[in-house]
Amino acid sequence: MSEIRIIDVHQSVFAVNDAIAEETRRRNHEHRTYMINLMASPGAGKTTLLLKLIPALKERFSIGVMEADIDASVDAEKMAGAGVRSIQVHTGGECAMDAEMTRQAIEEFSADDLDLLIMENVGNLVCPAETDTGATLNLAILSVPEGDDKPLKYPLMFRVTQAVVISKTDTREYFSFDDDAVVKRIHACNPDSKVFFLSAKTGEGMEEFTNWLINEIENEIR
Amino acid sequence: MSEIRIIDVHQSVFAVNDAIAEETRRRNHEHRTYMINLMASPGAGKTTLLLKLIPALKERFSIGVMEADIDASVDAEKMAGAGVRSIQVHTGGECAMDAEMTRQAIEEFSADDLDLLIMENVGNLVCPAETDTGATLNLAILSVPEGDDKPLKYPLMFRVTQAVVISKTDTREYFSFDDDAVVKRIHACNPDSKVFFLSAKTGEGMEEFTNWLINEIENEIR
Repeated sequence: MSEIRIIDVHQSVFAVNDAIAEETRRRNHEHRTYMINLMASPGAGKTTLLLKLIPALKERFSIGVMEADIDASVDAEKMAGAGVRSIQVHTGGECAMDAEMTRQAIEEFSADDLDLLIMENVGNLVCPAETDTGATLNLAILSVPEGDDKPLKYPLMFRVTQAVVISKTDTREYFSFDDDAVVKRIHACNPDSKVFFLSAKTGEGMEEFTNWLINEIENEIR
Repeated sequence: MSEIRIIDVHQSVFAVNDAIAEETRRRNHEHRTYMINLMASPGAGKTTLLLKLIPALKERFSIGVMEADIDASVDAEKMAGAGVRSIQVHTGGECAMDAEMTRQAIEEFSADDLDLLIMENVGNLVCPAETDTGATLNLAILSVPEGDDKPLKYPLMFRVTQAVVISKTDTREYFSFDDDAVVKRIHACNPDSKVFFLSAKTGEGMEEFTNWLINEIENEIR
């Protein structure tokens, strides 16, 4: 009996979540704000990629970064150091940002004049995939050290993302990582997903990804 | 109003969970079964570590492995290949094993004659830490590529574990990873936590960890 009750509650929570996410999407569209929901395992290189992207993006767009973590503020400090407006969101133990938390974070930001809102979600391949935040782009990072089998194990993440960055490609010689296999496995989840290979450390592949992203943002906000 | 209702339900779920976990612990103690709950990010090397440990453990103990994944069976197949009894548990989208799922998995196993039950939990640093499964030992792996700051960001995981394996130490030269800093950060979460540095690939540090684990198991089951 208690199990049935739990399922009811979850369904109502998801329905409420999706309505709030739609409202965020509508609001962002109206304000010409492009919002990225960046998701990955812990340590896949979310913050490092952002720190490398920001100089090129800052020239073109006004940017705000929301750093979601369970219980730390180290990433928001790094973003502030990179010269962009950033806020730290503590999820209070929750394993992902939901639409309401995202809405509150956007409000805190008074983000109406931003071209680009980047949310670095909690490091996790499971929970963030389950919750629509209202982002324009769901972007996942999968790092070479994690292995090319991750789309088999966490298919929902690769189903809900429109683009995947394979990061830390400079460590390829250390790990057996099959580029073709990972692309096939990602496309089995979402045949339209873009896949980029790059190393934020060496810069390999950064230009192609940055140009693609700039183009996506400009198509949406101009 | 709906929020208060959610919190109520979560609390009752946790209370039920903890009662089932206690029952599993009692049952394992009665049957002299040592149970390990192995937790880590996706790709930290849980399966690889197990495949390296099993030959040494198999000599001394009868072993069963429960592979928990959202939606794949690749790991259970690898375990079967290593010559141990293994079952694959699909969590149906859930981001961690709970006590009831664990209880059902143990039952499927008819595990009464096992000395050692190893559960490889879903790859995730958040959810598995929140849920007591009834394991004798909560063991976390943190891989060098993930970075030494993870105990700052996922403190609960390092609070609920009695031992942490720092894996992939052979990749140290590729990543800036501060051994002393990570030990301090782990001990800030749990001052009694054991910390082992090892590479399952090169074998560095494996002996020390294996000997410690064998000793822990024998103290409990003999």
